[in-house]
Formats: sequence, C-alpha cells, structure tokens
Amino acid sequence: MNLKQMVGIEAAKYVKDGMIVGLGTGSTAYYLVEEIGRRIKEEGLNITGVTTSKATEQQALNLGIPLKSIDEVSHVDLTIDGADEISSDFQGIKGGGAALLFEKIVASYSDKNIWIVDESKMVDDLGKFPLPVEVIPYGSQQLLKLFKEKNLSPILRLNKENEILKTDSGNYIIDLHLKKIDKEQTHDLATWLNSLAGVVEHGLFLNIVNLVIVGKGTEPETLEVSR
Amino acid sequence: MNLKQMVGIEAAKYVKDGMIVGLGTGSTAYYLVEEIGRRIKEEGLNITGVTTSKATEQQALNLGIPLKSIDEVSHVDLTIDGADEISSDFQGIKGGGAALLFEKIVASYSDKNIWIVDESKMVDDLGKFPLPVEVIPYGSQQLLKLFKEKNLSPILRLNKENEILKTDSGNYIIDLHLKKIDKEQTHDLATWLNSLAGVVEHGLFLNIVNLVIVGKGTEPETLEVSR
Repeated sequence: MNLKQMVGIEAAKYVKDGMIVGLGTGSTAYYLVEEIGRRIKEEGLNITGVTTSKATEQQALNLGIPLKSIDEVSHVDLTIDGADEISSDFQGIKGGGAALLFEKIVASYSDKNIWIVDESKMVDDLGKFPLPVEVIPYGSQQLLKLFKEKNLSPILRLNKENEILKTDSGNYIIDLHLKKIDKEQTHDLATWLNSLAGVVEHGLFLNIVNLVIVGKGTEPETLEVSR
Repeated sequence: MNLKQMVGIEAAKYVKDGMIVGLGTGSTAYYLVEEIGRRIKEEGLNITGVTTSKATEQQALNLGIPLKSIDEVSHVDLTIDGADEISSDFQGIKGGGAALLFEKIVASYSDKNIWIVDESKMVDDLGKFPLPVEVIPYGSQQLLKLFKEKNLSPILRLNKENEILKTDSGNYIIDLHLKKIDKEQTHDLATWLNSLAGVVEHGLFLNIVNLVIVGKGTEPETLEVSR
C-alpha cells in the first residue's frame, strides 16, 4: 500500500455513519473516496457525499456513494480534501487541480475540515507553490497586466492541449508565482485579491483546516490545529 | 426631449476624439450610446467603445460604434454608466440591470468614471435600493441561508418568466433588501461580501465615480466629486 493510500484510509476513519461529507479532489483524496466507497459496500456505511469537482463526482457515482449538491443539504459535517501547500501556521494554498472554487465553497460550509497531504506539502511559508486565482474571462488580460505591474509573476494557466484552461465554472486561472508569502501579509493578500473586480476566488484557504493528516516516512501522522 | 435623453447627450460631451470609452447599460446610458452613434455618423467622431453588457453591445453594433473587449485595449479613458443609487458621499449601488460584474470590471480599469442618473437616484444613504450580489450557482442556497441568518433579507432574483435569472456570466443574483446602509459600514460590508466563497461581485461601487450628471427639474446638473 502506498503512503497516499494509507493517508486516505486514515482520513476515512473520521467519517461516521449518518454524516454529510465533503469529498475533495486530487491524488490523495482519490484514495479517501475509494475507501469510503469500500466501507459503504462492505460495512454498510451510510453517508451523503458532497463533491467538489466533476472528477470526484464521477468517481463517487461509480463507487455508489450517494451524492447531493451543496445546495441540497442543510450543512456539511466534515470535508476531507487535499492541499498543495500547508504553512507552519496551518494556512493553505489549494487549486493546483483547478477545483479551488467549489472546494472553497464546500469547505466554507463545513463544520470541520481535514486536509490530507504528503510530507512535501508541509512548508514553513506559503508561496513556493504558485497561488491560483480564478478569474472571469472578461477582463482577465487587465488583471494579468495589473499582477505584472505589482510584480506578482502571473501566468495564465493552459490545459494539456495548450489552450487556456477553463474551470468547471467556465472561468480562467491565473497562477501567481510569488516564491514566498510572508505570514503577516497572507491575510492582506487575500483581502486585496478578493477586492479586485473579475477575481472570483483565490487559492488561499485561511483559518479553515482543523486537522491535517500527513504521509510522513512510512505512515500517516495526524496534526490537530488549534485556533 | 426627455430629461434622460438630455442627461445622456450632456454626458456624451465628455467623449473626445480618439478616446477609448466604456459604454454603460440601462435606460439613461441608452441615450448616451445613441448620441455617440449620432456624433460618429454626423461629426466623424472617432472612438473605440468597450461595452458592459450584451444589450449595450447589440445597440452599439447597430449604431456602427467600433467596439473592442476590455481585454483588447491597453486602458479605458472614460466610462459613462448609470447607477441605481448614489449617496451624499458619492458611493453607489449598481446592478439593477444585472450587468454589475462587467460594469465593475470596466469601471475598475477606467481612468475616469461618469455616472448619469435622474434625481430620484440621489439619496442620503444607500440601501433603499436592494443591493445586488452576483453569486456562483453552486452554493447559492447556502449563501441565501447565511444572508437570512444575518438579517440581510436576501431574495434570489427571477427573470420575467419567473425562472432564476442568469447573468451574462451564467451566475445568479441575490438582492439584499437592507433599507439603509450606514455610511461608516459601507466599506466593511463590501469587504465582507468579497470574502465569501461563491460571491463573484456585489453592487457596491465605492470610490469609483469622478463626475455625476443628474437630471434635475428640467435640465442636467453636473456634480464634480473630489476624493
């Protein structure tokens, strides 16, 4: 069993009968969803899943996990998702898989959030991983220009066919290659990005995670976050 | 000639040869666009228009106004648009026509903004006009619930066919029936709305307008805004 799979299975232990569970997107979340599917089939686990992307929705449907949209549930008990970077003060960057908008919407309405990652994602400061910003196509060239003027090293994300990548909502992603985001500037950066016309969402997930499960060495390590 | 037409024609005087001009949406902006069309035809005025909605784009094309998208121009010299409410400190609510997102994008990248309104739009405090919030469909029920909990009297906007209205970007509009927004709370409200996952844009246009032309009594009155 590989480490990502071990982490996914460890995280699935927090899923209890009757829960409404946000199901994340990405390579580690894949194993979580597989394990939840197994428990439904083999242990008769009874949950409702809320997906964060079309990819996860397809996987969950194939596994027979009952699904509802975020708008059909009263609340979400727990969301388990990956992250692209987690700082030493447990702030995160997400969006490498281009699903940050739905991931943030589901995370926002979740009573509890668990992130599952491998050791390489744990960093001192955020920013080595490019910060994704989801933007409305109309005006995106003006945003690119503005980000360049501010020395934020923006790159419009392309897909595998070298065309402009479109998110599940039909928007574009601009990745900001910041190298390092100072801890004391993280919240200001988020507020500034939110204030820009044409910015739909950004990949800074601040004060959201409650528990981090890290694949470290040969086994999962669980870190509780106190805020 | 009606007063809205007089205001539209007065505003068109600020449009000079060679300018890149943001063209607004709505009943007063309609007359502005007509007048620019007339000046192009009769006076050989040479401008490039940047539209803020599909409706204005169609009108401008019919009038032979050369158009570019906001992403094809280096900058916008001047944008002239309507407003639904303007407070005594010259902050505005826009979005009654559901075009707030593109209107705000164009306004943000404009060197100068002129608003053209009739006298009824000039108020002491904002908020009698419902504040439009453009939201991603996914999660919109959760936002409605949140706004209700905060006593912001949200109503999901419907179209004439009584279906959920979709904006030019395929999003929904939630109108907040606030009655009154205290001047000292306006910026905090904008920041809070911007911070919510699923909120694409809101109708508070703060510190944006430079000149207001009001149809007052029998003629247009011009108010310069100093910030």
